[in-house]
Amino acid sequence: MDSPPAVVGMSAKDVDTPALVVDLDALDRNIAKMAGTAKSAGVRLRPHAKCFKSAPIAQLLLAKGAVGVCCQKVGEAEVMAAGGVGDILVTNEIWGRSKLERLAALGHTVQIRVCADDEQNLTDLSAVATAYGVVIDVLVEINVSGNLQCGVEAGAPAVELAKRITELAGLTFGGLQAYDGPAQHTRAYADRRDSVARAIDMAAKTKALLEAAGLRCERITGSGTGTYELEAASGVYTELQAGSYLFMDVDYSKNCAQDGGPYRDFEHSLFVLATVMSRPVPDAGILDAGIKSSSVDSGPPQIEGRPDLEWVGGGDEHAKFKSRTGSAFPFANGDKVRLVPGHCDPTVNLYDWFVGVRKGRVEAIWPIAARGLNR
Amino acid sequence: MDSPPAVVGMSAKDVDTPALVVDLDALDRNIAKMAGTAKSAGVRLRPHAKCFKSAPIAQLLLAKGAVGVCCQKVGEAEVMAAGGVGDILVTNEIWGRSKLERLAALGHTVQIRVCADDEQNLTDLSAVATAYGVVIDVLVEINVSGNLQCGVEAGAPAVELAKRITELAGLTFGGLQAYDGPAQHTRAYADRRDSVARAIDMAAKTKALLEAAGLRCERITGSGTGTYELEAASGVYTELQAGSYLFMDVDYSKNCAQDGGPYRDFEHSLFVLATVMSRPVPDAGILDAGIKSSSVDSGPPQIEGRPDLEWVGGGDEHAKFKSRTGSAFPFANGDKVRLVPGHCDPTVNLYDWFVGVRKGRVEAIWPIAARGLNR
Repeated sequence: MDSPPAVVGMSAKDVDTPALVVDLDALDRNIAKMAGTAKSAGVRLRPHAKCFKSAPIAQLLLAKGAVGVCCQKVGEAEVMAAGGVGDILVTNEIWGRSKLERLAALGHTVQIRVCADDEQNLTDLSAVATAYGVVIDVLVEINVSGNLQCGVEAGAPAVELAKRITELAGLTFGGLQAYDGPAQHTRAYADRRDSVARAIDMAAKTKALLEAAGLRCERITGSGTGTYELEAASGVYTELQAGSYLFMDVDYSKNCAQDGGPYRDFEHSLFVLATVMSRPVPDAGILDAGIKSSSVDSGPPQIEGRPDLEWVGGGDEHAKFKSRTGSAFPFANGDKVRLVPGHCDPTVNLYDWFVGVRKGRVEAIWPIAARGLNR
Repeated sequence: MDSPPAVVGMSAKDVDTPALVVDLDALDRNIAKMAGTAKSAGVRLRPHAKCFKSAPIAQLLLAKGAVGVCCQKVGEAEVMAAGGVGDILVTNEIWGRSKLERLAALGHTVQIRVCADDEQNLTDLSAVATAYGVVIDVLVEINVSGNLQCGVEAGAPAVELAKRITELAGLTFGGLQAYDGPAQHTRAYADRRDSVARAIDMAAKTKALLEAAGLRCERITGSGTGTYELEAASGVYTELQAGSYLFMDVDYSKNCAQDGGPYRDFEHSLFVLATVMSRPVPDAGILDAGIKSSSVDSGPPQIEGRPDLEWVGGGDEHAKFKSRTGSAFPFANGDKVRLVPGHCDPTVNLYDWFVGVRKGRVEAIWPIAARGLNR
């Protein structure tokens, strides 16, 4: 585990690099805006901890009305439970004895919920729930994204699984997981709207079939930072599970808003602080933050406020930026710059600490305790 | 920090997933082969710890004749020093007071060497070396890769920096860093050969100029897994700093050998063990190891021994594989498969533990103590 790159009270300029910096004022505004949207729409907000992996941020969210958090991995759920989150939905299927036992064990201290799309998996969940003397709430994940993700087919197959849940000891039927992942980063608003409309329709029809079969569908959950207003306004979804809105990233900033302009519902609050370490040619500079410090899976990072500088490669430990106009690179060796990561979630997963800054001063050092917990 | 996904003595089949698994027999063979090449060529071998980040592997390398290790980050050097490596070359420029102090502090316990390409950086290095009462050996990094990486121009500018090193208190001139990074993953052998030939020529000419100026050039170092034989046979390079040969990955397997066939000098020894967790359609399956478990910056992972299955996407926590022929996906939910990572170095950086397996049994649990240490 790395040591923190800063201490509380330090000037933000003195933070060592590379460091994962959070603008706390911007984070607060992002949290408040999403909480307000959910409240206005009358839906619950359960932000996704796969994005932030840190209990202090979960506590900020709960304080603003979140009903709990989502996780993808049991290890994340354990960190959130230890950090005081009492209601946790694992938005993923869990296979393997060790992980199932850990999931069940959490049921003694928190309300644990998980997704399933397979009958054998339900049998396994029932076995561990019974062995541990807990009740696990199980949501049926339905395939709303054209086979790109997990999930059983909406409609009758989902109802069959839900019935099976109600027959098995130690399990309750918690509703539907209907997350349209591919829609989140679809650039055109109309395409996102149409994709989510299909998901809403599938969820609504499945809910009707469930009710016709005498099964109450307490919860329909999904949504993300790219589509949150659509599910919130659907009258079908009861919970939102967005996460990236806390931080934003270059990838989300490439989405278009409803009016065709850039998507700017939330502010960039997450940055990788980096140092210029080499100037091989006049119009370019190399930073000390490569792909091990800022994930490039969804495209490269950008230097904050400098659209004239383009990422042109790098490596594990280097990022090279070049002037788009051929003018001189505007920073000297030793200068610090802030990068907006290409993709926030996997970038957070590279660090052990958030450095929270406000008004130029370090105000928080938050452990990213679920960093790397991929089981 | 994550808990280990296995214990020594366990069957390799029982390792929890995702896990970073090393085939110890294959690792031993890779280590022996590179050590043999270096010995035959009469060059020193200093493998790159940015690849493996774990002291037990450094010890295996030293036992087979490595003179020390390379690092990219001071944090890696600290881990290697604490793990018993006595001679460490940081193949990178270090900027920033905190990191320079940590670098100098290491000089009391190990032979520390670092690269530089800037006169101000030399002044900073001299100041900390003097303050700590240590001697730092400084290599001049020369730009041998068409401005894609750090480094001063070969020839006279490099000689000027070398002279400056000899004038500064606390510093010794250690030679030249001449690493041709882009050549490593150039697919055609002839292109790699030609690129490295240019680097060899630049290094040789600079060495001649240094000697004409009365400066002894003790060390010319560079090379990587894609070009190691070329530098080894050059008569110019005195050290090899390859790392990926320990593990290999999909990216390196796409290189072509001299005869035009696939590059197979080393074996895949590194795997991500994953579990099938969803079967949304008959010809595809979703694994529990996404981009937070197997880096995709240089292309996706492959399932070991299954070229008929293609990675077709996924996400932070999922990898979806589909049959190329349309036939049924050959694994059931709960089955475990081994992935060959797309890129070994950033994949290692996602894990806290190597699980070493031999003949079907877990034999080693090695901490990846420099995981995430990017400062």
